[in-house]
Amino acid sequence: MSVASVLAPAPGCAASAPLSDWVAQHQARFEQYAQSCLSAEDREPRRLHAAMRYAVLNGGKRVRPLLVYAAGEFGSTPEAVLDPIAVAVEFVHAYSLVHDDMPCMDDDVLRRGKPTVHVAFDEATAMLTGDALQAEAFHVLANAALPAETCVMLIRDLAWASGTAGMCGGQAIDLAAVGCDMSASQLETMHRMKTGALLRASVTMGAAAGRIGAAERAALERYADAIGLAFQIVDDLLDTVGTSAELGKTAGKDLQQSKPTYVSVLGIEAARRWAERLRAEAHDALSTLGAEAQPRTMRLRQLADLIVQRRS
Amino acid sequence: MSVASVLAPAPGCAASAPLSDWVAQHQARFEQYAQSCLSAEDREPRRLHAAMRYAVLNGGKRVRPLLVYAAGEFGSTPEAVLDPIAVAVEFVHAYSLVHDDMPCMDDDVLRRGKPTVHVAFDEATAMLTGDALQAEAFHVLANAALPAETCVMLIRDLAWASGTAGMCGGQAIDLAAVGCDMSASQLETMHRMKTGALLRASVTMGAAAGRIGAAERAALERYADAIGLAFQIVDDLLDTVGTSAELGKTAGKDLQQSKPTYVSVLGIEAARRWAERLRAEAHDALSTLGAEAQPRTMRLRQLADLIVQRRS
Repeated sequence: MSVASVLAPAPGCAASAPLSDWVAQHQARFEQYAQSCLSAEDREPRRLHAAMRYAVLNGGKRVRPLLVYAAGEFGSTPEAVLDPIAVAVEFVHAYSLVHDDMPCMDDDVLRRGKPTVHVAFDEATAMLTGDALQAEAFHVLANAALPAETCVMLIRDLAWASGTAGMCGGQAIDLAAVGCDMSASQLETMHRMKTGALLRASVTMGAAAGRIGAAERAALERYADAIGLAFQIVDDLLDTVGTSAELGKTAGKDLQQSKPTYVSVLGIEAARRWAERLRAEAHDALSTLGAEAQPRTMRLRQLADLIVQRRS
Repeated sequence: MSVASVLAPAPGCAASAPLSDWVAQHQARFEQYAQSCLSAEDREPRRLHAAMRYAVLNGGKRVRPLLVYAAGEFGSTPEAVLDPIAVAVEFVHAYSLVHDDMPCMDDDVLRRGKPTVHVAFDEATAMLTGDALQAEAFHVLANAALPAETCVMLIRDLAWASGTAGMCGGQAIDLAAVGCDMSASQLETMHRMKTGALLRASVTMGAAAGRIGAAERAALERYADAIGLAFQIVDDLLDTVGTSAELGKTAGKDLQQSKPTYVSVLGIEAARRWAERLRAEAHDALSTLGAEAQPRTMRLRQLADLIVQRRS
């Protein structure tokens, strides 16, 4: 992840380490906690446990966990409380990638520069890996050291973001869209579900672990909606202008599969402008929270910049 | 389901309707509640919603929901409280069947006498149908009208029973076992995970919605372990001696796929005797609860009989 010098740290802020340090520290924190949630490879069923570890512990950017931690900082929630939330959203993300890469979906052989799970293992194991990671996501949340009411709310949010109103629903629309014309508005609906819902949930779940009011929640939701969509637009741009080596996955797949994208619908320049507008929208949403709240929004603002300005 | 005259109703018992009536009433109750939890087919994404309804509303025997309701009767829990639990366990069961039937797993084209989901729709939709049904199972539980502590416990139980320690783990062992020799003990471990874990969870989750003590829970777990294994032994027997028309699915698949089964390991007669012994074990577990509790165990006892004596 290209993190250097996206934003200078806010002067005098307690949490003012450079973003690159903050990202590296929280990525490492996530990796350690995720490892502890995954069964060891020498435990039966070994092949399934190995595949689950392979699917998750693969050097991913951890955008969703970072959003959980950043939103948790906004709510002044201890990081140890946020760990299971970070793991749960990333397990759902990881399972969706395993299933998406399979031959009956995107049929991709490369993910983050390594063979996809069904290639490294086999299709049946890949299917079970995704299924078991989804179960594990909810198991981790149900075991979180949080009040039961909060656990239930988080589980409800994650299930909603993963199901037909969110990720799976967006995928289904994506499948139906192959070879079809789509308007920018239809594309937006699809992506708000397919990728936006889980990114949004990462922010709202991270914040919900703390005590935040209705106005704060509304501002965070506006922020999350903006970055969720911006993330996908940048993904579409990178798929067009990036190389497979830079991306660690097959570049140009969308065009090859005749999938409508922001680039195919809007063109490169308009897509770039829209991503930039959404970054401003995300900042604006946080600005409405008033001066007192601004130090607590620093990481969220920086992550909005990172999501739009990333190179992979 | 062949339900007639499995057991005469207990005389003088308030809940003494014949088992066939009780089963039919609770199957109908389940169908209605399940329908209300599934999005309508005319709601986008239509194909996914249609496939989810097709996968669930297919005239299944509803063994797991019946166990939830029967265990709920033991805990004197109102049926309306049990509905979401019944739906959650059946959604997990239904998703597992959709994924199991796919070409990369069992490659089956027939389920309950109808084309399997990937045949009636397509493989990608079948994959998403399973994924979305699992998410929906947890969503339904997280919205149940139960104390938050109970919801969290139920979600933990279901996630555990579905993951690598339960259903998915058993499936993985099953995959690895194709063409291999297995001892009766290895087969038992596999099936306690693959089918037993969710059947067990149906009983413990149905009971946990009420107030039951540790001794009662232990007895129910012993009951559930016995019927969970008995269920699979009978499944193996039916796969050998039944016809596709009777079963509504392809008979003889296990032998064809060189999968070890209780019949291949023990032979038909020994497998029958073992199933019968497990039925007695299930009854025995409930008998330890004392005379006062017996009227509340009637349906559980009857279901143990039904599971062992069924013809499909």
